[in-house]
Amino acid sequence: MGIVLYELAGDNPDLRFSPHCWKVRMALAHKGLDAESRPWRFIEKDAIAFSGQSCVPVLVDDGEAICDSWRIAQRLEARYPDAPALFAGDGAVPLAGFVNAWADTALRPLIARIILLDIHDCLAPADRNYFRASREKHFGRSLEAVAADRTANLFALQSAIAPLRQILKERAFLSGAAPAYADYCVFGMFMWARCASTAELLAEDDPVFDWRDRLLDAFAGLARRAPRVATCKE
Amino acid sequence: MGIVLYELAGDNPDLRFSPHCWKVRMALAHKGLDAESRPWRFIEKDAIAFSGQSCVPVLVDDGEAICDSWRIAQRLEARYPDAPALFAGDGAVPLAGFVNAWADTALRPLIARIILLDIHDCLAPADRNYFRASREKHFGRSLEAVAADRTANLFALQSAIAPLRQILKERAFLSGAAPAYADYCVFGMFMWARCASTAELLAEDDPVFDWRDRLLDAFAGLARRAPRVATCKE
Repeated sequence: MGIVLYELAGDNPDLRFSPHCWKVRMALAHKGLDAESRPWRFIEKDAIAFSGQSCVPVLVDDGEAICDSWRIAQRLEARYPDAPALFAGDGAVPLAGFVNAWADTALRPLIARIILLDIHDCLAPADRNYFRASREKHFGRSLEAVAADRTANLFALQSAIAPLRQILKERAFLSGAAPAYADYCVFGMFMWARCASTAELLAEDDPVFDWRDRLLDAFAGLARRAPRVATCKE
Repeated sequence: MGIVLYELAGDNPDLRFSPHCWKVRMALAHKGLDAESRPWRFIEKDAIAFSGQSCVPVLVDDGEAICDSWRIAQRLEARYPDAPALFAGDGAVPLAGFVNAWADTALRPLIARIILLDIHDCLAPADRNYFRASREKHFGRSLEAVAADRTANLFALQSAIAPLRQILKERAFLSGAAPAYADYCVFGMFMWARCASTAELLAEDDPVFDWRDRLLDAFAGLARRAPRVATCKE
């Protein structure tokens, strides 16, 4: 039985932009594992009810459903130990967890504010009401009001990525000479913006820009070839 | 020949508060290494000129001077491989480097703003002019003006430590079940505030508070027993 991955999709079912789903996509590619990708929309809670919760990514492997990108990565590492390692040994797992927590708490809220309205616009019509209502409740403002601060949030993002920038001045990847799961945790945030928005988050002379380019080219350009909203609109 | 560590000291020569020196202190204790600690003041550039630069920590081991806390940690790990490991293998070093970069770029500037005036007040009189001039040039404001924003910076710090908090909800230490160098990189920032200031940076119900307590107790209470400015003033 093959691996199945439920991923958030836009109005165009080939448009996949969830940062957490991208973490898993890259992890699967790193492991050299094929998965059947199933598009999922926010309102399709019934389609993943079997997983016992209501968020993607959901990975089904050997008949077992695993939720949460971090738990999925642990599962892949444990179940496919002969495939390339996502973590440099057990001792590196907690530190990769810190990088993941950093991406989720320091980068995700800022990038969300930058691309929120773009995400809304690329969703299937049936998802838009859900998205607008839940996000406007979270932010306490309209999507349009949040989007109006884009420039300030872009500046804040440049400061927030300072530790990443510092490391990438010395190394090709966060994990060292080759990428590993910690890199994908951060890269997922940039794929989120790349696929759902036309906003450019990075300056060309930023070492983070070059790192992102290297990961766009990884696995035969898996991420670079992924459909983007700009392409979908054409 | 023993190990010598040059550390920044206050007016009271036993008051040691530099965050980077604390990283090294904890690393030495982790390795079970004794070192002769030599107090150093900002204006005593001549005393460490032999190291080829003008900042502490400087570690002299076997007649060789090593500067920069990160390079010192690498040196200790390489030279004392049979002592407890500071890094969970070579693969964990880049990720510990990220934690160090995060502490230096996300926490240090915020904590500096909170305790700047307290640091000034505990310095030797001859250091105060140097400190005031260099920091006021850096911040573009008087030390007093920076210190006036303490409450806002304390709030900002609570957000900045979100990734640390998230990890410490699940683990005793950033590095896992036991502390390692990544923990000391962050802990050094809190020792800086503990020794030089009476400001409390953390809420008692914060998992980071308990983590700090565990590290204060490590190595027979090495950090907890360290002189603090409040004690020195008494």
